[in-house]
Amino acid sequence: MTDTQNRRAGGRAARKAARAAPLSDAMRPVRPGMQGGTYKPLTQLDMERINEAALTALEEIGLADAPQSGIDIMVGAGAILGEDGRLRYPRALIEDMLAKANREITLSARNPKHDLHLSEKKVHYGTAGAAVHMVDVQTRSYRESTVRDLHNAARIVEHLDNIHFVQRPMVCRDILDNREMDLNTIYACATGTEKHIGTSFTEPDFVDDAFEMLHMIAGGEDKWRERPFVSNSNCFVVPPMKFATESCQVMEKCIAGGMPILLLSAGQAGATAPAPIAGAIVQAVAECLAGLVYVNAIKPGHPAIFGTWPFVSDLRTGAMSGGSGEQALLTAGCAQMHHYYGLPGGAAAGIADAKLPDMQAGWEQAMSNVMAGLTGLNMVYEAAGMHASLLGFCHESLILGDDLLGQAMRCVRGIEVSEDTVGLETMRATCLGGPGHYLGSDQTLSLMQTEYIYPVLADRSSPKEWQEKDRPDLIEQAVARKEALIAAPTPAALPQEVDAQIRQRFKIHLN
Amino acid sequence: MTDTQNRRAGGRAARKAARAAPLSDAMRPVRPGMQGGTYKPLTQLDMERINEAALTALEEIGLADAPQSGIDIMVGAGAILGEDGRLRYPRALIEDMLAKANREITLSARNPKHDLHLSEKKVHYGTAGAAVHMVDVQTRSYRESTVRDLHNAARIVEHLDNIHFVQRPMVCRDILDNREMDLNTIYACATGTEKHIGTSFTEPDFVDDAFEMLHMIAGGEDKWRERPFVSNSNCFVVPPMKFATESCQVMEKCIAGGMPILLLSAGQAGATAPAPIAGAIVQAVAECLAGLVYVNAIKPGHPAIFGTWPFVSDLRTGAMSGGSGEQALLTAGCAQMHHYYGLPGGAAAGIADAKLPDMQAGWEQAMSNVMAGLTGLNMVYEAAGMHASLLGFCHESLILGDDLLGQAMRCVRGIEVSEDTVGLETMRATCLGGPGHYLGSDQTLSLMQTEYIYPVLADRSSPKEWQEKDRPDLIEQAVARKEALIAAPTPAALPQEVDAQIRQRFKIHLN
Repeated sequence: MTDTQNRRAGGRAARKAARAAPLSDAMRPVRPGMQGGTYKPLTQLDMERINEAALTALEEIGLADAPQSGIDIMVGAGAILGEDGRLRYPRALIEDMLAKANREITLSARNPKHDLHLSEKKVHYGTAGAAVHMVDVQTRSYRESTVRDLHNAARIVEHLDNIHFVQRPMVCRDILDNREMDLNTIYACATGTEKHIGTSFTEPDFVDDAFEMLHMIAGGEDKWRERPFVSNSNCFVVPPMKFATESCQVMEKCIAGGMPILLLSAGQAGATAPAPIAGAIVQAVAECLAGLVYVNAIKPGHPAIFGTWPFVSDLRTGAMSGGSGEQALLTAGCAQMHHYYGLPGGAAAGIADAKLPDMQAGWEQAMSNVMAGLTGLNMVYEAAGMHASLLGFCHESLILGDDLLGQAMRCVRGIEVSEDTVGLETMRATCLGGPGHYLGSDQTLSLMQTEYIYPVLADRSSPKEWQEKDRPDLIEQAVARKEALIAAPTPAALPQEVDAQIRQRFKIHLN
Repeated sequence: MTDTQNRRAGGRAARKAARAAPLSDAMRPVRPGMQGGTYKPLTQLDMERINEAALTALEEIGLADAPQSGIDIMVGAGAILGEDGRLRYPRALIEDMLAKANREITLSARNPKHDLHLSEKKVHYGTAGAAVHMVDVQTRSYRESTVRDLHNAARIVEHLDNIHFVQRPMVCRDILDNREMDLNTIYACATGTEKHIGTSFTEPDFVDDAFEMLHMIAGGEDKWRERPFVSNSNCFVVPPMKFATESCQVMEKCIAGGMPILLLSAGQAGATAPAPIAGAIVQAVAECLAGLVYVNAIKPGHPAIFGTWPFVSDLRTGAMSGGSGEQALLTAGCAQMHHYYGLPGGAAAGIADAKLPDMQAGWEQAMSNVMAGLTGLNMVYEAAGMHASLLGFCHESLILGDDLLGQAMRCVRGIEVSEDTVGLETMRATCLGGPGHYLGSDQTLSLMQTEYIYPVLADRSSPKEWQEKDRPDLIEQAVARKEALIAAPTPAALPQEVDAQIRQRFKIHLN
């Protein structure tokens, strides 16, 4: 062995040891907040036309049904109340409010390492929705979702690298009182995960109690206001072009309490939004701009996520189809409009129409998720676990979704072209008198962990190895991982005295 | 009922009748050859750096192992033979040959309606590969693939709208003689489908027989040469940077016989190609440029598809991983290089590492297929049916892949922004005194079939409907459709006398 070979072997052993250690966050092949933007379904002209149509809609059609408080606030800011009760928005007002809007939002997490920094084209994936069913993969059936299911989903996400936040994905149907349901939703999520949480409130009256609980979890109102780790997913409009009166009142209270708002416009193309994809984007943009006026007229710069969430109808039946190519385009187009305005935004992707985590679910979830990421959508909501066009949530699918999203994020990271990656030294050394392959080259070994991402459950073995492993079933593997993750301790558990205090003050259903 | 309503109802009835009739090709929401190009993983500067590195590699490293005929041809054109036996290519030679290369290739099909027009960013999806196993979904096992399996695959594709060509995806392992295998491969494909076919030849000696058979199918050599409906998938290089001597001889014969060539460079990043994604693209581009010189030095303008097909290794094991995000990026980056040179090109996408058509398969196939399409890859090879990193082919997956590709193509079609789609008339009529929803609007009804694509097997029913249908299993549905499609008559069947003539001249294994 020559000296050179010796040095090489030494270097290799050192690298091998380094590979055994966990990668530092900076070295990981993918991480939250990577920049997208390589996919642009809309041209600049397209975006200008959509903006122009949205501004015209706000000027001429306007929105109905604002609560009196909202009318007062927005008219005070410059909106015009028509005799038909609709609020209309002059262009100058929209421009003013765009100038005041917060363009760099941090969504705090109980553990700061999970904070989400929303700006530019930084991409984050997470759960969301209001599924009413749990998918039981073992009996292939649907049952009502419970607070325990929700808590378990949060516990699972705590351990999944590629799911960056937990907006409440399902409804606790075992809690019949709406106030108790809203409060227990927060409790179930917050005691499961230290990642950022999103939730909604059924009635404005419930918000005060929620803040009381959040202050207890945070250790005081000042601590909560410093790092609000829950955002309010707020369906402030009932498309087309009507405010949701009660949700607006919820929003006003959340703003007062220092909670970031997700301004969520969830029209359905062909039903509650125009059928053309571009038209559905126009309406969603118009509605969210009205919401932006609302928020910034109350409190300039209050963190508000531009939540254009238009969905797609299967026009044969009018039913929703979240797993369609049309949905993937809608979401990607919306993401571009967020960039057009320079606003932190979110939209829905990763929804499966499939009832079970089968091949259909895989392609439906992958297509919209990867397109949302490549466009640079800041918050990709409903990215994992969602089935039956949002009616069902599935823990096993959530876990498999983590693998899926790892690959999507690798695609978002993109192709690095640099002297290192296109330099010919390695090719030259390999081809001209070298081994004729790249298997053991320094370059290959050094990229093994930093450039390539490996799935946890997805199987890459050969048919022979797979046979020898007794042909593992993907879903059974996910069931096993689910059980392990639910059983694992979660750092989100509250200190005993805080937990006792909360349980004394509120009726907590989890035990 | 007013007059207006009467007219509307009449119009609606007429539209309803129109919807019952099959859509003309121009009206279909998706069709072969739609333009991609909205996704661009590489910047212009990135492409220039890759081009520069590839040209340098051709100048300085060159390719070994050309057959003597190839050396004579390429040295005659201006390549330089080194003392180390490697051919090196001056930049001016590459430029000359790029100027001579065919930039608008038509791949003919026996039925002209299936002709593929390769240019710009027009996208086509099809099968390809050399799987040695068939996946049996009912026993969840792998067995050797046969000529009957291949024929059935071709029969199935004949009826799938979103699979546009049949490059032979698997090897007939029940035919031990290689000459017989190559000839029976053509026969099995050509009697199954009228779409364009791709195949390869084990030895140069077998090519003459193949042409004899093709002339018989076409009805004479002149007819064949007028519309060659089979292309030669030719692995003319053994990466890194070596010609595959025998395949080059096959290529020379195919060019003489008027068969379009797929110049296929199938390196594997981290094994037979550099590990960085950009480096693997550099090598594939360099190799295909050498192939382009070869083809155009023989016959300027001969149709040759720029087949940069780099694959990805799982660097933990060195095994191939076609289902990874890295693979999706590699293929998309290659597609952009085709556009950089203005050459019709192809690459691999849609490969699953999953052994079965499960959720993993769905996400793996979807991500790379949709990204390839959005980039505008002319020929997306291996787009359906491929499992176990190319070792297994699956008929049921092929059928489900048709649904998957329909959605991918919808994404390629993109978002149309026009006066019609962003115009506010429908929104105005709906919101201001209208019904408050878009369900029955003229716009919605008129877009129902032309803007939205509906899957054949993918299930969009609600949990309740799904329950009532007795929870249909996706794979069982695919099995049923497979059986129906295989049993259906195929227009590709040869006239009896031609068939008899072929069977007399050659040993045909299908009976």
